Amino acid sequence: MKRRSLLRGAAAAGAAGLAASAFQAPAIAQGKRELKLVTSWPKNLPGLGTSAQWFADKVTAMSEGTLTVRLYAAGELVPPFGVFDAVSQGNADMYHAAAFLFAGKSKAFSFFSTVPFGLTSDELIGWYHYGGAQALYDEAYAPFKLKPFLVGVPDFTMMGWLNKEIRTLDDLKGLKYRMPGFGGEALRRLGVAVVNIPPGELLQALRSGAIDGTEWAGPYGDLGMGFHKAAKYYYYPGFHEPGTGVELVVNLDVWKSLKRSHQEIIRVASDAANLQCLGEFTAGNGEAIATLVKQGVQLRKMPDPILKELAGHSEAAMADFAKSDPMAKKVYDSLTSYRKKMLSWSPYGAEAYYAARRLALG
Amino acid sequence: MKRRSLLRGAAAAGAAGLAASAFQAPAIAQGKRELKLVTSWPKNLPGLGTSAQWFADKVTAMSEGTLTVRLYAAGELVPPFGVFDAVSQGNADMYHAAAFLFAGKSKAFSFFSTVPFGLTSDELIGWYHYGGAQALYDEAYAPFKLKPFLVGVPDFTMMGWLNKEIRTLDDLKGLKYRMPGFGGEALRRLGVAVVNIPPGELLQALRSGAIDGTEWAGPYGDLGMGFHKAAKYYYYPGFHEPGTGVELVVNLDVWKSLKRSHQEIIRVASDAANLQCLGEFTAGNGEAIATLVKQGVQLRKMPDPILKELAGHSEAAMADFAKSDPMAKKVYDSLTSYRKKMLSWSPYGAEAYYAARRLALG
Repeated sequence: MKRRSLLRGAAAAGAAGLAASAFQAPAIAQGKRELKLVTSWPKNLPGLGTSAQWFADKVTAMSEGTLTVRLYAAGELVPPFGVFDAVSQGNADMYHAAAFLFAGKSKAFSFFSTVPFGLTSDELIGWYHYGGAQALYDEAYAPFKLKPFLVGVPDFTMMGWLNKEIRTLDDLKGLKYRMPGFGGEALRRLGVAVVNIPPGELLQALRSGAIDGTEWAGPYGDLGMGFHKAAKYYYYPGFHEPGTGVELVVNLDVWKSLKRSHQEIIRVASDAANLQCLGEFTAGNGEAIATLVKQGVQLRKMPDPILKELAGHSEAAMADFAKSDPMAKKVYDSLTSYRKKMLSWSPYGAEAYYAARRLALG
Repeated sequence: MKRRSLLRGAAAAGAAGLAASAFQAPAIAQGKRELKLVTSWPKNLPGLGTSAQWFADKVTAMSEGTLTVRLYAAGELVPPFGVFDAVSQGNADMYHAAAFLFAGKSKAFSFFSTVPFGLTSDELIGWYHYGGAQALYDEAYAPFKLKPFLVGVPDFTMMGWLNKEIRTLDDLKGLKYRMPGFGGEALRRLGVAVVNIPPGELLQALRSGAIDGTEWAGPYGDLGMGFHKAAKYYYYPGFHEPGTGVELVVNLDVWKSLKRSHQEIIRVASDAANLQCLGEFTAGNGEAIATLVKQGVQLRKMPDPILKELAGHSEAAMADFAKSDPMAKKVYDSLTSYRKKMLSWSPYGAEAYYAARRLALG
C-alpha cells in the first residue's frame, strides 16, 4: 500500500509538475511581462495623467495581461524630471512626458514638442506619421537607448494671464512674465523680464504681484490652476505652443526584447491615446472657456504688430539655436520645410473654415 | 498485409484526427476568430481604403492572429453601399464606410458624419469621446444589430471646382453643381440645380460641361480625381464638410461574442486608425494643394454674403429634418449644443492662431 501510495504520490506530483510546466510554458512562450511606466505628471492630472493611465490600461487589457503596464505618477518612483534618466538607464521601462522637458539632454529635443508659430495638433500628427519626423525622433533618442512615440497632442493654448492690458510694444518693457522656451526668448528680446517659477507657486506669485503674468496651457488646463482668481485678462492666441507633443518613450533594450505583437500593442495604444488626448482637450477647452467668461474673465487679443515682432524674434532664436548642433539642425530643417507646406494649405482649409463658421453662426 | 495496412491507415487517420483536435482545442480556448471586413472604398483608396487595411493589419498583429481581420474592398464581397445590410444581417462581420451613405436607413445617421458649418475633425473627435455622441451612436445603430465606432476624420475640405467665378448670389442661379447632403440642399434653395452623378463619371461630366462644378473632398482627395484638368477655379472654404466621420461598424452579435481583449483591440485600433487618417489627410493636403497651384489652379474664396446665405438655409433645412424623427432630433440637439461650446472657443483658439501664423509668416 505504502509503496503504491508513494508511487501514486509521485505520479500525482509528476502530473502536477506537468500541469505547472504546461501552464508556465505557454506563459513564457507568450512573453508575459510587467512594465513600469513613470510619468512627469501628478496622478490623474486631467488630460495628461489620465491619458498615461488610459494608455497603461489599454495595453494591459489588449494583451490580456501578458503585457501589464504599471503606472507610477510623478515622484512615486522617480522625480517628475527624472523619468528620462530612469528609463535611459533601465531603472524604469518607459515614461510619459514631453520632449521639451529634456531640452538639456539634446538640443534636438527642443523641436519635437512645439515651437512658436509652429505646427498645430493635426499638423504635428501629420509630421510625425507622414512627414518624416518619426525617423528623426528615433535617431535623436537612440544614443540615449530610448525608443520614442508621439502619445498626445493637446488642443490650442492661450498666450496667458495678465492684470494689465498690452496695447503697444512699450507695454511689454519690464513686464515680469512666465513663459518657457523660444516664446519666452522672443518676449525677452522685446524687453520682458522672463521668469521661471515652479508651477505650484505660480498662482501665489500672480496674486502677490511678484509676477505680472503667466502662460500655462489652454482654458481646460488653466481653469484647474485657478489663474482667473488672480488675473483679469486672458490673452490669445497661444502663439508659443500651438500643439504640444506628449511622448511615450520606451527603453530601447526593453523595446527590442518585446515580441512583435506586444510592440504593435504599444505602438497602436500610443496612437489611440493621442486621439483621446486631442478629443479630451478640445471638448474640455470649449467647456472651460465658457466657465471662465461666466466668471468675469476678459478675453484680449495680443495686437498684430506685437505678434509679428514675436514671430521675428522667435524665428531668429530658433535658427541660431539649430545652427549650434547637427541633429537639432536636421530636425529644425524637417520641421520648417513641413511647416511651409502647411502654410500653403491652412489659410484655405482650417483658417478659412473657422472664420466662415464664426461669421455665419457666431 | 492488407488488414495490417488498413489498420495502419486507420491508426494514421486516428493520429491525424487527434492532431487536428489538439490543434483546434487551444484555438477555441484562445477564442481564435477570423472576421470579414467589407468596405465602401476601392482597394487602397488613399486615406480610406488604406486606413481600413491599416486597421485590419493592426488588429491581426496585436492579437497575434487570434483575431484575424480579412479586408474585402468595394464589390469584392458586397457592393459599396451594400455593406450596411451585409453586416446588419450577419453576412459579413464589420464594415468601414461613412454614416451619411446610409441616411436612407435612419434619419439620425445624417448627423453623425458631418454637416454644413458643423464640427471640425478635432471637435468631432471630442464630441464622440467626451461630448456624449458615442452613447447616441450606439442607440441609433442598435435596432440594426450594429455596434459603431469612429475610425477616421479626414482634414478640412474645399467647396469644390468651377469654371466660372461666383461673385454674387445671382451667379448661382441655374448653375449645375454636384453636392450631397444639407450643403446641396442649401445650394438648391439658392437656385442651384443640384445634381447627383456617380464619382466615376464626375470628371467627364465636368469636362464636357454637363455640369458646371462639383465638390469632392480636399486637395489630397481631389488631386487623384483629376478635377484640375477640367476646371480652373478651386473654391474654399469647404463649408459643407468640415470634418467627415468615417465609421467602423461591427455586427452586434459578433461584437458580443468577442472576448474582452478582442473588443479592446478593435476599440483601440479604431482610435489609432482615426489618428493615422487625420495625419495622412493633413500632411497630404499640404502636399497636394502646392502641386495643384503649381499646375495653374486658381484658389477663390466664396464671398462672405453667399456663405451667410448658405448657413441660413442649411441651418433651417437641418432643423426641419431633425423635427421629423425623434432619434434624429436627439442627435441634432446634442450636436448643436456641443457646437455652441466649440463656437465659444475656436475664435480664440484655432482661428486666432491660424490667422496670427499666416500674418506673421505667410
